[in-house]
Amino acid sequence: MVTMRDVAERANVSIATVSFVINGTKPVAPETRARIEAAIEELDYRRNVVARALASSRTRILALLHPDFETRPNITVIQFVMSAAHGARERGYDLVLWPVNDGEQMSHLLAGGLVDGALLMEVQIRDSRVERLIASRVPFTLIGRTEDDDLPYVDIDFAATIDQAVEHLRGFGHRRIALVTQCAKVPPGNEPGRIMRAHAAYLDAMAALGEPPAVIAVEGTSEGGRVAARTLKDDFPEATAVILLNEGASAGLVKGSRALGRTVPDDLSVISASTAPEFGEMIEPSLTVMAAPATQLGRLAVNALIDKLDGVQEAPPHLLIPCALVPGESVGPAPA
Amino acid sequence: MVTMRDVAERANVSIATVSFVINGTKPVAPETRARIEAAIEELDYRRNVVARALASSRTRILALLHPDFETRPNITVIQFVMSAAHGARERGYDLVLWPVNDGEQMSHLLAGGLVDGALLMEVQIRDSRVERLIASRVPFTLIGRTEDDDLPYVDIDFAATIDQAVEHLRGFGHRRIALVTQCAKVPPGNEPGRIMRAHAAYLDAMAALGEPPAVIAVEGTSEGGRVAARTLKDDFPEATAVILLNEGASAGLVKGSRALGRTVPDDLSVISASTAPEFGEMIEPSLTVMAAPATQLGRLAVNALIDKLDGVQEAPPHLLIPCALVPGESVGPAPA
Repeated sequence: MVTMRDVAERANVSIATVSFVINGTKPVAPETRARIEAAIEELDYRRNVVARALASSRTRILALLHPDFETRPNITVIQFVMSAAHGARERGYDLVLWPVNDGEQMSHLLAGGLVDGALLMEVQIRDSRVERLIASRVPFTLIGRTEDDDLPYVDIDFAATIDQAVEHLRGFGHRRIALVTQCAKVPPGNEPGRIMRAHAAYLDAMAALGEPPAVIAVEGTSEGGRVAARTLKDDFPEATAVILLNEGASAGLVKGSRALGRTVPDDLSVISASTAPEFGEMIEPSLTVMAAPATQLGRLAVNALIDKLDGVQEAPPHLLIPCALVPGESVGPAPA
Repeated sequence: MVTMRDVAERANVSIATVSFVINGTKPVAPETRARIEAAIEELDYRRNVVARALASSRTRILALLHPDFETRPNITVIQFVMSAAHGARERGYDLVLWPVNDGEQMSHLLAGGLVDGALLMEVQIRDSRVERLIASRVPFTLIGRTEDDDLPYVDIDFAATIDQAVEHLRGFGHRRIALVTQCAKVPPGNEPGRIMRAHAAYLDAMAALGEPPAVIAVEGTSEGGRVAARTLKDDFPEATAVILLNEGASAGLVKGSRALGRTVPDDLSVISASTAPEFGEMIEPSLTVMAAPATQLGRLAVNALIDKLDGVQEAPPHLLIPCALVPGESVGPAPA
C-alpha cells in the first residue's frame, strides 16, 4: 500500500508538506504543490479519509443547514453558501448541503455521525432545528439569531442597518417612511429573526422621529412588490419613502408604483436593505441598496465553527455587521 | 453500545424500517418515523457512518464541482446546486460543495477518498477538471458537455433553444437578429460548452435565413449590457432583435438601449435565453425569457450518478432538454 511517506520521498519533500497539500491546511509553493500532486498521481496514492476519520473520530465534514427554498434564493443567500464552502475548503474541511425546514427532518442526518459541526441559515426567532442541534451535541454556529442571544452566531446588524437607512432618507427630507417586509410561512412571532429585529428597529426609529409607523408584509416576488405599491398608495399615501427588507419584491414595487402613476424617486424614494448592489443596478432606476456582508459573514461563521472544533476558540462568536449603504438613483428629495 | 436492533425494539418496528429512516432510502409513515426518531434520541443512538463506510468502501458522499465564482452566480446556477443537493438527500446521499477552477486544484480532494462520485458544473469544451476526474477513476456526470459527447452528461439543448428563439422572433417579422454572449476568462476555443454550442446554432440559423450574423461578447454585468447596447447601435444598427445568452448583461442592455434612445421592444426586441422567469419579471419591460430546466437537470444529473454507483444504470446518460419560452413584454413587431 502506498503511504504518505512514499509520496514525500517521490516528491523529495517532507511528510508534513505532503500533509499540508493533501489536507489543504497550509499554503504550499505552487512548484512544490505541483511536484507533490504529480507524485500522488504517479503512485496512485489515496489517503484513506475514512480510515483516518475512524482513527480520529473526526470526519472534517461540516453541514450547512438551509431551508428547502420554496421561493428563489437570492444573491445574498448564494454568497453565504459559496463563501462558507470556500472557507471550509481553505481549512481542510468539506461542506455538505442539507436542505431541512424543521428539526423533525434532522434526526437521521445527525444520527449518522457524518458531520463534525453545522452552520445554520435562515434562523427563526424560535427554531426547532436549533433545539435539535443542541440536543444532538453537534457543535454549530448560526448565521442569524434565535431569541437566545447566548448561542454562537454571526448576523447582519439589522438595527444599525435600519437606522442608517432612516438617517439617509432623513437627509433628503423624508419623515413619513414605510417598511416593506416579507410574509413568512410560519406562525406569527416565529418569523425569521431578521424580520423581527428590523421591524423592532424600525418602530424605534419612527417613535424617535415622532411619526406613525407603516409596515407592509408581502410575498418576496414581483407580484408581492405590486401589492405593496398599491397598499402604499391606498393605505399610506402620506409616505414619501420606503425601506424594503424584501429584495424579491423590490423590482415589483418600483414597476408597480410607476403603473399607479407614482415615479421613483420623484414621488417615492426607495432603499432596498440586505440587497446585493449588482441586483440594484438591474432595476430602473438603479436602486439605492444596503449591501449585505454575506461573503464576510459566511467566512466568519465557518471559521468560528472550525476554531471551536479545533479547540482554539476562547468564547462563542457574537458578531454583528451592518449592511453598507450603496447609493443608486432611487432616493431623492421628499416632495414638498 | 446501542445498535440499530435496540432502536428497532424500542420503536417496535423492524430493523429494516429503522434503516429506511436512518439512511433515507425509503419513505416511512410519519407516525412510524416519529417513533423511530424518538427511540434514536432516547437511546442516544449514533449509527457510525464512518465505520459503515470503511466496511462497504462507500461513503455515500457526492461532490459538486463548481467554479470559484468570480462574478455572481445566477438563479439558474443556484437551482442546479439546490436541486442536486435535494436529489442526493432523497436517495440517502450527501452532497459536498467543491469550488475548483481547474484540474490542478483537485488532486488533494480526489486523493482523500471522501466521495463516491462527482457532478461537474460550468463545463468547458476542453476541461482539465474532466481529465482529472477520468484519471482519478471517480464516477461522474457532467452538467454541460465537453467536446467529447460520449461522456455521461445532462445539458440544456442550446441548439434547440436558439432555434426556438429565432423562430419566435421571425414570427414578429425579425430577420436581422444579433447574439450577445458572455466573455469567458479562458483561451478562445476553450469557452464554456454552452457558449460554443449556442454560437454554432446561431450561425446555422442565420445561414438558413440568409442573413449576416452579428455576435457580441461582453461581461455578464450591467456594464457589459451597456457595452452591448452601444456596440449594437454603432456596429449593427440594422439588427432589430437580439438574443442574449448572458443573463447578467440583460438588464444593462435594456437600460443602456433606452439611454441611447432605443426603446425595447419598439426599436429593439430582446429574448434572454437560459434565464429564470422570476428574473425577467424584474426588468422594465418584463423580459421574454427562455427558462432553463435547471431543477430538472440537477435532479437528472444526481439520479444518473447514483444509478451508476448503485449499479442500476444501463448506459451513461446523454440527456438534452431545451429551455422553455416564457413570453414577456420585450418582443414586438420588427420596425418597418
